[in-house]
Amino acid sequence: MNYSIIFKIIGWVIQLEGIFFLPPALTGLIYKEYKDALIYLILGILCITIGGLIRLHKPAKTTFFAKEGFVAVALSWIVMGTIGAFPFVLTGDIPSYPDALFEIISGLTTTGSSILTDVEALSHANLFWRSFSHWIGGMGVLVFILAILPMTGGSTMNLMKAESPGPSVGKLVPRIQQTAFLLYAIYFVMTIITVIFLLIGGMPLFDSLCHAFGAAGTGGFGIKNDSIAGYSTYLQNVITVFMFLFGVNFSFYYYILIRKVKDAFRMEEVRWYLFIFLGAVALITISLVAEGGKLGESIQTVAFQVASVMTTTGYATADFNQWPQFAKGILVCIMFIGACAGSTGGGIKVSRVMIYLKQIRKELMQQIHPKRIRVLKLEGKALEHSVVHSCNTLLMAYIVIFVVSLLLICLDGFDMTTNFTAIAATLNNIGPGLNMVGPTGNFSEFSTLSKFVIMFDMLAGRLEIIPMMVLFHPGTWRK
Amino acid sequence: MNYSIIFKIIGWVIQLEGIFFLPPALTGLIYKEYKDALIYLILGILCITIGGLIRLHKPAKTTFFAKEGFVAVALSWIVMGTIGAFPFVLTGDIPSYPDALFEIISGLTTTGSSILTDVEALSHANLFWRSFSHWIGGMGVLVFILAILPMTGGSTMNLMKAESPGPSVGKLVPRIQQTAFLLYAIYFVMTIITVIFLLIGGMPLFDSLCHAFGAAGTGGFGIKNDSIAGYSTYLQNVITVFMFLFGVNFSFYYYILIRKVKDAFRMEEVRWYLFIFLGAVALITISLVAEGGKLGESIQTVAFQVASVMTTTGYATADFNQWPQFAKGILVCIMFIGACAGSTGGGIKVSRVMIYLKQIRKELMQQIHPKRIRVLKLEGKALEHSVVHSCNTLLMAYIVIFVVSLLLICLDGFDMTTNFTAIAATLNNIGPGLNMVGPTGNFSEFSTLSKFVIMFDMLAGRLEIIPMMVLFHPGTWRK
Repeated sequence: MNYSIIFKIIGWVIQLEGIFFLPPALTGLIYKEYKDALIYLILGILCITIGGLIRLHKPAKTTFFAKEGFVAVALSWIVMGTIGAFPFVLTGDIPSYPDALFEIISGLTTTGSSILTDVEALSHANLFWRSFSHWIGGMGVLVFILAILPMTGGSTMNLMKAESPGPSVGKLVPRIQQTAFLLYAIYFVMTIITVIFLLIGGMPLFDSLCHAFGAAGTGGFGIKNDSIAGYSTYLQNVITVFMFLFGVNFSFYYYILIRKVKDAFRMEEVRWYLFIFLGAVALITISLVAEGGKLGESIQTVAFQVASVMTTTGYATADFNQWPQFAKGILVCIMFIGACAGSTGGGIKVSRVMIYLKQIRKELMQQIHPKRIRVLKLEGKALEHSVVHSCNTLLMAYIVIFVVSLLLICLDGFDMTTNFTAIAATLNNIGPGLNMVGPTGNFSEFSTLSKFVIMFDMLAGRLEIIPMMVLFHPGTWRK
Repeated sequence: MNYSIIFKIIGWVIQLEGIFFLPPALTGLIYKEYKDALIYLILGILCITIGGLIRLHKPAKTTFFAKEGFVAVALSWIVMGTIGAFPFVLTGDIPSYPDALFEIISGLTTTGSSILTDVEALSHANLFWRSFSHWIGGMGVLVFILAILPMTGGSTMNLMKAESPGPSVGKLVPRIQQTAFLLYAIYFVMTIITVIFLLIGGMPLFDSLCHAFGAAGTGGFGIKNDSIAGYSTYLQNVITVFMFLFGVNFSFYYYILIRKVKDAFRMEEVRWYLFIFLGAVALITISLVAEGGKLGESIQTVAFQVASVMTTTGYATADFNQWPQFAKGILVCIMFIGACAGSTGGGIKVSRVMIYLKQIRKELMQQIHPKRIRVLKLEGKALEHSVVHSCNTLLMAYIVIFVVSLLLICLDGFDMTTNFTAIAATLNNIGPGLNMVGPTGNFSEFSTLSKFVIMFDMLAGRLEIIPMMVLFHPGTWRK
């Protein structure tokens, strides 16, 4: 194990977090929350100093392997959460450290599950930090580091691989640094566009920024107790559209950027994503209309909720806990499917679901026509055996973590739907589930043990399980 | 497609079902239910005649491939259900044909889910047929045909493969016919032993036979409204032991038979099965004792319920719907794991779960030590790539069928726990689930559409999905 390079990467992460503490400090200043502003400022300076000191240590070797990549990424995220929880505790808005940790890990992993019963009681600085954490976590902090700092050659691929969602890393261009830079550039510009559209609809700047962060990172922390329900239909629709857009594979935007518009729209995953989205909207709308809902109004509400759940954002404008069972069933399904690989969304990812379905079809056809040779293809290219294999083991590891987590939180004694959807909503980084953890509920009632289980799940979901498993596997640490 | 051989196999199946109608006819005669006895007798004679006529047709080729094997098995089971439902309707005990079909498919697939609210109202002939169907379905009717009839060479392997549960067919001896014969011999003798132990405990002969059929086939239809709860502790414990024993891979008994006792106890799958069983009993007992249950009594009740659910039998002596959430969570887990491959039990099977877990470990170790080469092994032998691949696609197909079924029965509007466990209990061939379909409930409230969905799931579960998918795939029927 190359400890010194891991040490150095964590130094960078701490420094970067220090820099990320400055915008909330500024927010506190603007809103005259001087105590909060000071806390963020001091923490920021401390982090920048400590991170810098750690970075002084020069690693002997700068190359590292997959194992170090996974460990560095998993540790970085845990460190970010551990430090990021302090402002909530120090400002007194979330006095319990485990609760504060839950809240910031939920933020960074872009989950959006909250232990708060009254969001509006928070200071502006804290609300900003909460939403900003979505934006930081959405594209990933190590991808950010790769984008802005010169790092040595091929090894950095192992960081990118560990932090980016999807069955294989979508390198837009051959060089990692350029890819990371392009991803962040698209992310940044699209966030700005979201803010502009929200401002046009009359949303205040502070609200616009916070909601744009939540939509861009597909996070879902609101700044109002009723999430997005209180805003105008125009604003709700803007958020629907941008949630959907941030769930698209970013390669799509890259193709458009380099004017390969045809290639963009030919992307198989994007087509399936759109198809599943439209299918879910249609089916749920029918089930609402069948129970007496108005068509136009239902489509608008359903589109918002489906975009929110499928992209794993988690904003709400309706209490879907009250919807018919069939509608809830569809929502739970798309919770698991999630968004495209290479987007900021969570879940199993559309492309993996495609790979699973294609494998079933291949196996069936093999039985029916045993002599024909078939190749698994994705986006027109044959899938490497190792990619398929990783996809399959991910599904199994996912199920194992799901089941173990479910059993552990069952100890709290809440009903099965609450437990099942609490894990589904956090392992897939969505936010709200059903019943007690539905859109109008929260996670405050769970025991501390359950909260830590759920924190693990949020991290496992965001990092796609393997990094967390490698980190906690004894074999990683044995000589 | 070799239609004529499929035709011939179905002829055999119909004839055999005619023969199976005779024991219930005799039962009716003994209990002076003359109308019922006559109905079973006439149906029996009709089936033997019609089946014989169909068999007159000589197929041009007697060899067939995997595709024909799957289609023949899937069709045979559907035909058996379709014919097997008639006595219930004609005797007037279950007047609705779809309900009667549900009941007999539940019987043949050894599920044990019922649409009856009052089991005790049935005639003895019908109760016998209901329980006897578990015994027929447990080891499989085509395996029975293979055991007693001379069939041509290698092709019969495709029938065995399609009907026997598990990742790969456990041939006890090189010849298929001998293997089938041995399996049925072990099955038959063990059933007799069960009957003897029940008779010793003072259970009447009729009850002993019915319960032995249910335990042997891991079915679970009771003949009393309170299932097994009304019998003595001794009888309950006898059933616990035999349910457990019928969930063991039959290779275990074969090893003992040929005096390779050491090899028997070295079987990896059997060890895991025992380990999971004991683990589940311990965890659930602790959770019951923590809520004030008595230790000795709890162990006895829990062992029965765990053996019943894990072997996918479905008898009950306690309403586990009232247990703590954690205990229910464990029960739902072992519902999915199920019994050993090569047993009469259902579920995903212990050996498949082992293959999944071993794949996760292999993938993790590959990341940690990329240079070491690892081989997946089961029972000390390297697993063929195609077996692992089939296991993986089965899991995916299983999830797809689970999700689609769940959505369809959600249309009835019952609560999520009822819906989820109704599919879990039928796709895994267990019987009772939780809430409305718990041990004290039944499936009568579901709509006809839902009942047909569940029938499909019971068949898909018993035949391990692929045969049913091949049957309904348009590609199978295209030239």
